[in-house]
Amino acid sequence: MASNSLGQIFRITTFGESHGVGVGVIVDGTPPGLPLSEDDIQKDLNRRKPGQSRLTTQRKEGDIVKILSGIFEGVTTGHPIALLIENTDARSRNYDDIKNSFRPGHADFTYHHKYGVRDYRGGGRSSGRETACRVAAGAVAKKILDTKGIKIKAATIQVGKIKGNKWVEDFIESNPVRCADPDVEKEMAALIDGARMNLDSVGGIIECRVTNVPIGLGEPIYDKLDCEIAKAILSIGAFKGIEFGNGFEAAEMVGSEHNDAISKNGFLTNHAGGILGGISNGEPIIFRMVVKPTASIAKKQNSIDISGNEIILETHGRHDPCILPRAVPVVEAMTAITLADHLIRSGLYSKKV
Amino acid sequence: MASNSLGQIFRITTFGESHGVGVGVIVDGTPPGLPLSEDDIQKDLNRRKPGQSRLTTQRKEGDIVKILSGIFEGVTTGHPIALLIENTDARSRNYDDIKNSFRPGHADFTYHHKYGVRDYRGGGRSSGRETACRVAAGAVAKKILDTKGIKIKAATIQVGKIKGNKWVEDFIESNPVRCADPDVEKEMAALIDGARMNLDSVGGIIECRVTNVPIGLGEPIYDKLDCEIAKAILSIGAFKGIEFGNGFEAAEMVGSEHNDAISKNGFLTNHAGGILGGISNGEPIIFRMVVKPTASIAKKQNSIDISGNEIILETHGRHDPCILPRAVPVVEAMTAITLADHLIRSGLYSKKV
Amino acid sequence: MASNSLGQIFRITTFGESHGVGVGVIVDGTPPGLPLSEDDIQKDLNRRKPGQSRLTTQRKEGDIVKILSGIFEGVTTGHPIALLIENTDARSRNYDDIKNSFRPGHADFTYHHKYGVRDYRGGGRSSGRETACRVAAGAVAKKILDTKGIKIKAATIQVGKIKGNKWVEDFIESNPVRCADPDVEKEMAALIDGARMNLDSVGGIIECRVTNVPIGLGEPIYDKLDCEIAKAILSIGAFKGIEFGNGFEAAEMVGSEHNDAISKNGFLTNHAGGILGGISNGEPIIFRMVVKPTASIAKKQNSIDISGNEIILETHGRHDPCILPRAVPVVEAMTAITLADHLIRSGLYSKKV
Amino acid sequence: MASNSLGQIFRITTFGESHGVGVGVIVDGTPPGLPLSEDDIQKDLNRRKPGQSRLTTQRKEGDIVKILSGIFEGVTTGHPIALLIENTDARSRNYDDIKNSFRPGHADFTYHHKYGVRDYRGGGRSSGRETACRVAAGAVAKKILDTKGIKIKAATIQVGKIKGNKWVEDFIESNPVRCADPDVEKEMAALIDGARMNLDSVGGIIECRVTNVPIGLGEPIYDKLDCEIAKAILSIGAFKGIEFGNGFEAAEMVGSEHNDAISKNGFLTNHAGGILGGISNGEPIIFRMVVKPTASIAKKQNSIDISGNEIILETHGRHDPCILPRAVPVVEAMTAITLADHLIRSGLYSKKV
Repeated sequence: MASNSLGQIFRITTFGESHGVGVGVIVDGTPPGLPLSEDDIQKDLNRRKPGQSRLTTQRKEGDIVKILSGIFEGVTTGHPIALLIENTDARSRNYDDIKNSFRPGHADFTYHHKYGVRDYRGGGRSSGRETACRVAAGAVAKKILDTKGIKIKAATIQVGKIKGNKWVEDFIESNPVRCADPDVEKEMAALIDGARMNLDSVGGIIECRVTNVPIGLGEPIYDKLDCEIAKAILSIGAFKGIEFGNGFEAAEMVGSEHNDAISKNGFLTNHAGGILGGISNGEPIIFRMVVKPTASIAKKQNSIDISGNEIILETHGRHDPCILPRAVPVVEAMTAITLADHLIRSGLYSKKV
Repeated sequence: MASNSLGQIFRITTFGESHGVGVGVIVDGTPPGLPLSEDDIQKDLNRRKPGQSRLTTQRKEGDIVKILSGIFEGVTTGHPIALLIENTDARSRNYDDIKNSFRPGHADFTYHHKYGVRDYRGGGRSSGRETACRVAAGAVAKKILDTKGIKIKAATIQVGKIKGNKWVEDFIESNPVRCADPDVEKEMAALIDGARMNLDSVGGIIECRVTNVPIGLGEPIYDKLDCEIAKAILSIGAFKGIEFGNGFEAAEMVGSEHNDAISKNGFLTNHAGGILGGISNGEPIIFRMVVKPTASIAKKQNSIDISGNEIILETHGRHDPCILPRAVPVVEAMTAITLADHLIRSGLYSKKV
Repeated sequence: MASNSLGQIFRITTFGESHGVGVGVIVDGTPPGLPLSEDDIQKDLNRRKPGQSRLTTQRKEGDIVKILSGIFEGVTTGHPIALLIENTDARSRNYDDIKNSFRPGHADFTYHHKYGVRDYRGGGRSSGRETACRVAAGAVAKKILDTKGIKIKAATIQVGKIKGNKWVEDFIESNPVRCADPDVEKEMAALIDGARMNLDSVGGIIECRVTNVPIGLGEPIYDKLDCEIAKAILSIGAFKGIEFGNGFEAAEMVGSEHNDAISKNGFLTNHAGGILGGISNGEPIIFRMVVKPTASIAKKQNSIDISGNEIILETHGRHDPCILPRAVPVVEAMTAITLADHLIRSGLYSKKV
Repeated sequence: MASNSLGQIFRITTFGESHGVGVGVIVDGTPPGLPLSEDDIQKDLNRRKPGQSRLTTQRKEGDIVKILSGIFEGVTTGHPIALLIENTDARSRNYDDIKNSFRPGHADFTYHHKYGVRDYRGGGRSSGRETACRVAAGAVAKKILDTKGIKIKAATIQVGKIKGNKWVEDFIESNPVRCADPDVEKEMAALIDGARMNLDSVGGIIECRVTNVPIGLGEPIYDKLDCEIAKAILSIGAFKGIEFGNGFEAAEMVGSEHNDAISKNGFLTNHAGGILGGISNGEPIIFRMVVKPTASIAKKQNSIDISGNEIILETHGRHDPCILPRAVPVVEAMTAITLADHLIRSGLYSKKV
């Protein structure tokens, strides 16, 4: 049943609940000698933390990370790095409304049936709060990737029916939607705001681009790089699909279009999204993921209680009307964790360039 | 680097190349006492084997499976089941055209750079021939799922721009496209045939539906059922994307639409595709996957040789103009392997219903 | 490189250094619904903690455990249980004497060469302090074993040349040596005391007995119960050997002696130590382990510094002249962790007796 | 339940029964580019195979290995190497005497209770025949170790009460006992012969020495080199104990004796057996293992049948009166497999010396 670990050589193991003492992660397998401070991690955590704008939940969490082990005199020792983020704004409110009922779109129903017992406060273990650990661990992974110059950048490219068409990398972190296209960002923000005022939520699509990738990451047959990225990404709550390169469009293409021809200067196109036969081919790795509209909404919903009686559920609380802006750093973190593991597995970490 | 195994408790490990002695698999972790014969496995292998119709490759492989271990007096013993499928039509032709060049869309380029040495005959380890092992192992997995009545059915729902709209389960195995919709099957077949005559290939979309699923399969946080299915599916060559339930459509939905309301008779809709919080909720598990057009085409393509010189590549050989009809049983197999592992992991296998 | 986890289904992952913030462990895979409190864990930690008698190190550590996650309303939730033990008596003394030198018998030399960087304060990650996490995790494992009535008891049976001959279970916890034989305990204590006054240390042998074991724990071929116990035990610092049943004596036996005959009332002898073919046979599991004399001694020793210069090393500090009394609960913990994992793996946990 | 794999990066997975089609192994994670032929493997298999002298079983097995995959043009490709050894002398005799009864000292009893179904022919999966796969995989592992000059040599050092005192390496393979001491070999052979004539069997001790070991193999805390060797070794049937360096003698030593002092020319002694803190220190790795007397004896023994009735068991067949001579190459193989995995894990394989 142990299932809270990810990765083989570089491996994270997480713990914690939304309204308990805190959440945390043990990062095992980091090579020794890498400079790492709490600031390095805090920077990414601040991008994920709640309350950054009116588009996100108003829960107030400092999300302050504390390094418990694995760092000595400013560098990694090669031993486990334990990171703790204490919960500070876990309001001790009355949970009677959700204690005995199943919120639609949430894990309440399945956790209840699988485990019998359930920490219902804010979703307990199934809360999005758990992603703080992923971001913290991702910051460590990025230190490993930095040694090879590998760069990961994700952005919101669609919210509801509003689609971006441009990828302006410098723009992404300057807007609350983390949208890559300046032409549609305002419209996306308005849509999110509208959903919130309507007591509803909205979904969208995130794209991730990894550049400066060495050839050779990914292990056939079952640990192909795309499989491993897919597994890591779809483990994030609310993510319902992933596609690489041209993705679902490939259904309508013929082979002579989709195959990336090769010249002496490299690939002429990148329909494959940077991965061939499960191994990185040196081109940018490109993939897109769909995020469902936040399950937590204030609207009345039909559900049942744990005894099977039908109820009308009204859940109040502090929700994100759209999870994408805060999910962007989580996508980057999961990608970084996966690539760091494969960089070491492939023997390329220790190789001098 | 070991990466040819999949699963934790029920685990497969495969080997073999397209033009070597054969391909095979060790299936470890099968519970004891299940009836299993070569016929049980052969039935599924025959659905994947080449030469079933003019829509598939004309390579002639009997794909006859031999059980080497793990069965005694007709039942599983709980010990590893080794299955061997010998290659019989591995023509000893001249490979000089591909020996030193990289076929676009194939793993030639990445294998060359990752491993230095490469069995170029028919793609070697990266050949689709490897999927015979998956199907063989899947037949074992299905024996485990059968004990709980879990049923898996996949079908082609799109080829090129031609989309099916109906799911007629009985129709699927009766047509060479393995299409679920009788209204479009002929059109799909014609499209595939046209691609072949045009020395090209075509992609499409497969849908998979799992019914009679118990509540409780899948382990949070990193071994969620959807993550694990995605990993297994995307490890199949040519698969470039996967989505669960409403999938990418969820981007354009609001929470009050996408959330599946619950009544005392169960869920009123199944936008989630049968999985909530990474755990099966008892509804059918539904997902779709995109398959790129076959990389092997007879058309001339621009590429380079291993010395970096630009070349015009013409690869002859026996290719599938569309891989979907033969990929359908592979999808079912990978799904069965993943579910069997989780049925045992969750403790539900040994539980009396 | 990730290597700080043990177990497959019930799995522990530890972190922490001797003189850092603290040490801790994530216990993953605990079944839901088991009552667990900090007191349950503290009880075992108190048996391992320093300063229990004059026979052990005088370092003063409260070893107070704090549960960070995984418990809700007094019971396990099935999600990771994170346990933290903060360091309180990590004296900020001058480490210049050991900073640049290698203490004989310690990991200083190998850590230096393997990692380049090394937290030298009190041995850092290689400190025996890390075993507090094992004991804490073991207390959780025992809760799982309790549901089946499985009991684990370890004791000191030899110190230096002084050997015990009796196994008086009630006596073990009543004496500071944790010796099982009242007739030799005083002599053992005197020997340990003498070693301390002589600025030296002394080794010994621990025996462990597990009773009320169900038939069927252990998985052939490579996860046999004895292999897995051996791996867990020999991962404890200072443990240099292990034997099961008659152990090394079996070298001098013939088959007709060593084979345990079977009657309708069960096995007539237990030379095998309760394990046949790697699987528990229902008899008590019995094994013995040798513990080397503590490497930390105050006597002058020949060594080198990190530049390779020969030095005379005098290490002061607070050492255990004999580690056995405090190692006894660690042995029990590692045994409990291994058995809990196998109880669940074998499907026997969920089975009603 | 999957448990027939060993190793993380270099990993073996075995299958097969004593009287089925054959036994075999998939070796995954071998680096590409290593020369490997069936002859390389056969050489080691011949050292393990039955019928080498009158001291071993008279079963006639050619033990001819066939490479099924992973080798191309004489070198490893980095993909799984599957090896098959077909059974040829699996006599189709009448098994009625053991079919329904439990042979003392064997896995019959535990397999019956754990699995319900059991391939009783020659012990089925629990047969020593399975070790042929270990030896075959070990031959691959040795190719990896050869690149660094690491050498592994095991020998019989005790049979019954007869103990060797010398380690004459060249002598080991020249005598049927694989004894390292020419002075006692004849006496050992006579003892084994006597046991056979007495319808009995005899145990003993094997020592293994690994030389030219780089510093840095082994991963703290739970994958220490000694733990991993112990696990691998104790997974061999009939092995009941293991000790490193001075082993159980360490119980009677004081710290100032056992600690290996260091000079500028290296360690002055090797009481630790070449491992400190779980990591190789560059000294020879030395360990000893006890092997119980063969469980299969022709003498009458008390046992029960599967219905619980008491019986007198007389098992005929072709047994080794002492398993040590044939176990020596198995010990070397398991050691090689473990070290190869750790050489790659530690990043030292790809490092230029």
